[in-house]
Amino acid sequence: MKNFLALSQEFKSFLESQTWIEEPKGLYEPIEYILKIGGKRVRPSLCLASAQMFSGNSEIALNQALAVEVFHNFTLMHDDIMDDAPLRRGQTTVHEKWDANTGILSGDAMMILSYQILPRKAEVHALELLNTFSQTAIDVCRGQQMDIDFESEVEVSLDQYLEMIRLKTAVLLSGSLDLGAIVAEADLSDRKLIRDFGEKLGLVFQIQDDILDAYGDAELFGKKEGGDIDANKKTILFALALQHSNESQKKELLELYSSPAGTAGKIERVLEIYNSLHLRHKAEQMMQEYHQKALQDLQGILVNAEAKAPLFELAVLLMERTV
Amino acid sequence: MKNFLALSQEFKSFLESQTWIEEPKGLYEPIEYILKIGGKRVRPSLCLASAQMFSGNSEIALNQALAVEVFHNFTLMHDDIMDDAPLRRGQTTVHEKWDANTGILSGDAMMILSYQILPRKAEVHALELLNTFSQTAIDVCRGQQMDIDFESEVEVSLDQYLEMIRLKTAVLLSGSLDLGAIVAEADLSDRKLIRDFGEKLGLVFQIQDDILDAYGDAELFGKKEGGDIDANKKTILFALALQHSNESQKKELLELYSSPAGTAGKIERVLEIYNSLHLRHKAEQMMQEYHQKALQDLQGILVNAEAKAPLFELAVLLMERTV
Repeated sequence: MKNFLALSQEFKSFLESQTWIEEPKGLYEPIEYILKIGGKRVRPSLCLASAQMFSGNSEIALNQALAVEVFHNFTLMHDDIMDDAPLRRGQTTVHEKWDANTGILSGDAMMILSYQILPRKAEVHALELLNTFSQTAIDVCRGQQMDIDFESEVEVSLDQYLEMIRLKTAVLLSGSLDLGAIVAEADLSDRKLIRDFGEKLGLVFQIQDDILDAYGDAELFGKKEGGDIDANKKTILFALALQHSNESQKKELLELYSSPAGTAGKIERVLEIYNSLHLRHKAEQMMQEYHQKALQDLQGILVNAEAKAPLFELAVLLMERTV
Repeated sequence: MKNFLALSQEFKSFLESQTWIEEPKGLYEPIEYILKIGGKRVRPSLCLASAQMFSGNSEIALNQALAVEVFHNFTLMHDDIMDDAPLRRGQTTVHEKWDANTGILSGDAMMILSYQILPRKAEVHALELLNTFSQTAIDVCRGQQMDIDFESEVEVSLDQYLEMIRLKTAVLLSGSLDLGAIVAEADLSDRKLIRDFGEKLGLVFQIQDDILDAYGDAELFGKKEGGDIDANKKTILFALALQHSNESQKKELLELYSSPAGTAGKIERVLEIYNSLHLRHKAEQMMQEYHQKALQDLQGILVNAEAKAPLFELAVLLMERTV
């Protein structure tokens, strides 16, 4: 049984063996560029881990893992245009290096490529792969739209926030695991459990992200501490604050969250409100609960314990991450 | 056997029966908007005509026809952003009515929806549908990139031009016909013939478009006569001109084609060069040749003549169009 690191290495080697450039080059060069920027390759590794768990063989899902990674990078390429982000993992974004039109069209081509790669060496499962992949992909778009909608909404409930991160982040982890399960011919009840595991893991991941942005070591995390607060970004902490604050705290928070980025003292004051409501602890508790539920889902899957080890390992690593 | 008009009516009714709006509404409203703007629905009608020809039943391909139309409208939504076009069929474009980010994200969602619709009621053919659809889709992107590349190229050869319109326009007609053939379980040699027919028909269509832009009745065609010339757009006439002109004509043409839109006398002078080289006639001859070859492909398909009638009818209508 390969551990999670070995699986991610296996994927990285497969990714490096691919050639992307075809004619016309202008379409394919940005695709090669973004795929070579790097990243932890968590989603494709999940796909391989799932296939390995259900069949003992991760290799059978390499193409589906690649489809997931190409799709994920398509979303990054288009998201960066929408956010007008200058950098992605420390490198110039595609729309900055080329232009917005290039980012749109090469992104479109990446999405199509991901569908083209999807059934490879698993042709007999084409229909199930296609259905899972499309449902996952449309959910990611729905999550992105909710996130955009949140920018112009004053208040966001905890349920709305959780639904947004479920769609924007969690379903892609869940879908990656399911694709691996499909090619490994897992039965339907196990496929449901592995999807549920992935979804909860995704929620843990995003809640963790929100906590680290407010409380993480800024140097380690590579961005400004409190960056989300400064940008009025709706996070789990913001949603929890609205739920737990009294009238005057809520009024002050909403005022702070309507001031522009860079407003003096804003981050500090919002954090004071969060602290007085013990929100870091509350958010960490939620994270713990989702984590426990995720582990229960994994435990419920009908394969031997050894086969589950790499995914347990990942779940534990995820809880311990500081960046 | 339903004629082409009846098939397009059948598709329009099916399209009208669909509901598009889900949550979050901001994602789906632009999709419903562009799908209701209208259009001739040529591509989905081709899909139905092909299914009818091979199986006697157009209805079996309604979902695949819908997938094609949704995909086509996704390309329009993104192309309009790239061209910064204010109007589409007389209506405000999505990125103008909403904004560019909305056009990007709702366009992405449309592409995914087209893949989601694709296997419906033809699940057993999912793999073939997926392969044809993805190859078609990536070719359309390649054609769009070539078209963009042409903007910054001084000269464009006839072969380059033909390859661009083959990818950008013709393969989608060809792919639409093939999807209908797949669900109707046509054999591989007939599928190749119907694809070839579609590709040649697509070339006829685009060459016709270029001729009409330069020589068509401006009022009927709904845009300015010579609009392509004014915008320095590389057309079949421009590519033919480079091939047939002498040194001094070529020099003058390239100079005219480097002057900005609106330059006085430009359209008239380019048309004089085209006329002195008899390019309208040469382009019409090419069109006729592709048209003849398309009809031969159709004739070669092993079904009875009556079954082919609607596609013959369309091919003839296409040659006679003035708008």
